[in-house]
Amino acid sequence: MAAEPRCLTPIGVVHSPFRQKFGIPRQPRLAPVEAEIELFPPLDGPEAVRGLEGFSHLWVVFAFHAAGQGGPTVRPPRLGGRDRLGVLATRSTHRPNGIGLSAVTLKAVAPGRLTLGGVDLLDGTPVLDVKPYLPWSDAIPDAAAGFAEAPPAARPVHFAPAAEAALAERTDGEDLRQRLAAVVALDPRPATGRAEGRVYRMAFADVDVAFTEGEEGFRVLSLEASLRD
Amino acid sequence: MAAEPRCLTPIGVVHSPFRQKFGIPRQPRLAPVEAEIELFPPLDGPEAVRGLEGFSHLWVVFAFHAAGQGGPTVRPPRLGGRDRLGVLATRSTHRPNGIGLSAVTLKAVAPGRLTLGGVDLLDGTPVLDVKPYLPWSDAIPDAAAGFAEAPPAARPVHFAPAAEAALAERTDGEDLRQRLAAVVALDPRPATGRAEGRVYRMAFADVDVAFTEGEEGFRVLSLEASLRD
Repeated sequence: MAAEPRCLTPIGVVHSPFRQKFGIPRQPRLAPVEAEIELFPPLDGPEAVRGLEGFSHLWVVFAFHAAGQGGPTVRPPRLGGRDRLGVLATRSTHRPNGIGLSAVTLKAVAPGRLTLGGVDLLDGTPVLDVKPYLPWSDAIPDAAAGFAEAPPAARPVHFAPAAEAALAERTDGEDLRQRLAAVVALDPRPATGRAEGRVYRMAFADVDVAFTEGEEGFRVLSLEASLRD
Repeated sequence: MAAEPRCLTPIGVVHSPFRQKFGIPRQPRLAPVEAEIELFPPLDGPEAVRGLEGFSHLWVVFAFHAAGQGGPTVRPPRLGGRDRLGVLATRSTHRPNGIGLSAVTLKAVAPGRLTLGGVDLLDGTPVLDVKPYLPWSDAIPDAAAGFAEAPPAARPVHFAPAAEAALAERTDGEDLRQRLAAVVALDPRPATGRAEGRVYRMAFADVDVAFTEGEEGFRVLSLEASLRD
């Protein structure tokens, strides 16, 4: 009985500036990046979200639609990609049933549309559920967290002249700079295969961004119009 | 694409003293009730849970297998069952896709078996995922929670002589008394249909429990061997 498959239909979809997995912070609320959930019928009217405006934060339960399923163990980036841990002891995206869980900021509520802050959600993510965050039940600030006791450290980010010039041409340049700096600061690079001078490329919003590790942190080399949109 | 159904296979099942929905606390960690998750192959070996023993709390993502789906609005018991709110603004079990989310205490880890504390999980619940609780990401103690700002208040519970006699005959009498008192104290009664002197019956562990509202709280009237097991 218990092992019978259960088929779920997404209730909505995420519209996010994260256009690829690379670059997405490894937990929510680490970078000030906004996204929207578009709710599908029959939840796209004012009834389904009535009362939600009183909450500051939301749980988004979603499908890791771009991640494959792995085996019973994974190599967390936090451990340098060396050590294997049980997948159920990690928040890896490569997990049985591929269900993701993110506590995000709720910035605005409209019928059929929720505006979120601090997202770690890929564009096009299928949303399986949305729940209000209840601090007296969901917040356990003194919980012990094994190998993952602290958030990842942010490192300084500098912009090269070519990147500065590209930002200066945009009306949203300052806003984009802040979002990009926050995302790159968290070090989205895979734990393995790092080599001095290696250039990483990331699709974010409407730009393709190139960055590399610098002497003290990261250096954004260029921003180019993305061909993805 | 995003609205394509996704079929999930439970990774395990809950073994819990809550044998029926009635009596289950409306959030986890409100009553000291233990349960176990039995993990199914291929996650029943030591690999899948390696590293989990370092965490004090777990997220259990599960299916509300005994709850029907409702419409876009529900009547939360917290509001006396009078007012309708959007289902996405509540933690109601009658929700699209029927996915539940509980932060529980992790008491012990063994291959294929997790011992949990503070559960609000029905016996037989299909488990879709288990994730370690990360306080720096999951705990937002100052989140605003609209109509649900505080946990439900616990009320005093007294045991009638017949209930005391039944407890005295058990080797686990004191333990059962504490668990039952904590569960009844949270007032499991539906918000509507309450009448003076009405007797409520609840299946818990191996007993059927009868209780009623008393002058200052609740009165457990009797404990009888359950015919369910």
